[in-house]
Amino acid sequence: MLKFNEEQQRSSIQDALALRPRIEEVVDEISRKGFRNLYFLGIGGTWASSMQAKTHMKERSSLWVNDLLSSEYNTTGDRCVGEGSVIIFSSVTGTTVEVVESVRRAKEAGATIFGFVDTAGTPLAELCDYWIQYPANEQLKFLIVADRFLYDNGEFDDYDRCYAEMDAHLADALIETEKLADDFGREFAEKHHDDPMHYFIGCGIQYGHTYSYAMCFWEEQHWRRSKSIHAGEFFHGTLEIIDRDTPVTLFLGEDSQRPLAERVKRFLPQVCANYTCIDTKDYPLTGISPEFRGSICHIVLRTVTTRIDAHMERINCHPLQIRRYYRQWDY
Amino acid sequence: MLKFNEEQQRSSIQDALALRPRIEEVVDEISRKGFRNLYFLGIGGTWASSMQAKTHMKERSSLWVNDLLSSEYNTTGDRCVGEGSVIIFSSVTGTTVEVVESVRRAKEAGATIFGFVDTAGTPLAELCDYWIQYPANEQLKFLIVADRFLYDNGEFDDYDRCYAEMDAHLADALIETEKLADDFGREFAEKHHDDPMHYFIGCGIQYGHTYSYAMCFWEEQHWRRSKSIHAGEFFHGTLEIIDRDTPVTLFLGEDSQRPLAERVKRFLPQVCANYTCIDTKDYPLTGISPEFRGSICHIVLRTVTTRIDAHMERINCHPLQIRRYYRQWDY
Repeated sequence: MLKFNEEQQRSSIQDALALRPRIEEVVDEISRKGFRNLYFLGIGGTWASSMQAKTHMKERSSLWVNDLLSSEYNTTGDRCVGEGSVIIFSSVTGTTVEVVESVRRAKEAGATIFGFVDTAGTPLAELCDYWIQYPANEQLKFLIVADRFLYDNGEFDDYDRCYAEMDAHLADALIETEKLADDFGREFAEKHHDDPMHYFIGCGIQYGHTYSYAMCFWEEQHWRRSKSIHAGEFFHGTLEIIDRDTPVTLFLGEDSQRPLAERVKRFLPQVCANYTCIDTKDYPLTGISPEFRGSICHIVLRTVTTRIDAHMERINCHPLQIRRYYRQWDY
Repeated sequence: MLKFNEEQQRSSIQDALALRPRIEEVVDEISRKGFRNLYFLGIGGTWASSMQAKTHMKERSSLWVNDLLSSEYNTTGDRCVGEGSVIIFSSVTGTTVEVVESVRRAKEAGATIFGFVDTAGTPLAELCDYWIQYPANEQLKFLIVADRFLYDNGEFDDYDRCYAEMDAHLADALIETEKLADDFGREFAEKHHDDPMHYFIGCGIQYGHTYSYAMCFWEEQHWRRSKSIHAGEFFHGTLEIIDRDTPVTLFLGEDSQRPLAERVKRFLPQVCANYTCIDTKDYPLTGISPEFRGSICHIVLRTVTTRIDAHMERINCHPLQIRRYYRQWDY
């Protein structure tokens, strides 16, 4: 299978799950000390992950939690961020300029900084009050953080059972998903690799990936035009430009917002003959109980779209790591 | 001038400003009673206006304020909405199903409901604790509400001076803008009326209009493809698909996020020969002091894009009131 190393994938996920005792230590300490509000902060793809974590918590929690777009915070500010605030973020390079500025600003305002920074000795690693270093798996790291805050706030009684299942089965469930999705990914890439525009629709805990899949994958990595639209917003404008041939992909998850995507699913066949549904319900996720599937359906979705990317890259002869403009000069 | 009735326009704005004593009465009463958090709620275009009002307040306030997407709230919920919450919304028809459900739900949770509903005897009008009926000017109504909350919270000392200027000069300043923008609007429409895709970039208090201009105007009313992107996010993906011929319009405002748009303005000419900047600084807004221009630059922008719409409608022979699918059948 193209760009797939099963053992590497298994240990990547398993070792991310193994961060849990350290994450629990940090979150428990923050919860014990008390806090006023929580922000998942990011820009681009990391903002997308932040939106997911926020939505996941909103579904369950009375805590004051939000996402924070780094560039907005650096300019408009947010006077609710200060003493008693907790900023949670993730960064691969540890140097993204907007995020460095945001974290510095929030820290000066008195916030507690909890960061996943993959590269030691970087500005972002050094700004953290709590720092965890481990590559990739950003969505999973944020999920564990969010779930532990819920647990500490008495809003997730099944935490232990849930993570016992994750520890035992998540890696294999995602590997199983990736294998099952490979034929689909190849067929999808063969059909859509040259689309002049592609629409991605999604919502809920999957909206972050919908947004980032269109922007950080198709636009940034494939250099293909695409637009994301929230399933709850689709009927308030974008529907009007869908016709028989418009390439549309609808993501369906298993969280509270699924009915919004289902409504789009009912509508699309009436006006479009070129749409695809990616529904995480179609994947068995062996070993994961039904009640926990909603919390991980964004990770499952990402696993499925990974197979599209692998085949698109090959068909389009366009290596995903190249950038036309990004970080190519000082703009 | 096409689709422009100066007297009608002046009285529409002037009469919206004349709502201020009633708005002040409502906001002052809510402030006096005390509240925990404020939400501007909407869907589609009214969510866009909600984002603007939130961003405007965030720049100045320590109040807990947010926007709330109606479809998300109806499914995922928000346990921070309840006793001590204030929901502010606007509706023309008074019947938008998602908003009716949201407002009912928030009211049941104990929130105070303050709505601008243009049509009496509708479900939304009847759900309001405080109801104001006056057509159009949604952005202006929300601005007055936001500013009065700031004033009551001791965060807008210049309130009286600001609104004395608005009462005296805003209507004429916007009419002057619309006249000045008409040639531009015609030329823009002549050049771009048949674009296969058009990108709109904006931020800050103008982001709501950027989002809604792409979705509620180009997609919904013109049936033309378009995508909006936040200027603070543009460099994290979308930049890669811009080339010499890509149609791009950048909106520049005068609020705190202007530097994000200015960065895009410096970048675009290096990679694109088909971009347009719409900068509210180019319009005199006679009688409005510099320090208040940032608060109304989204309304100025909307006035400018109105001229594009008037000419696009004529050139494309596509009446803006027709809908292909929206509310055409029960989907």
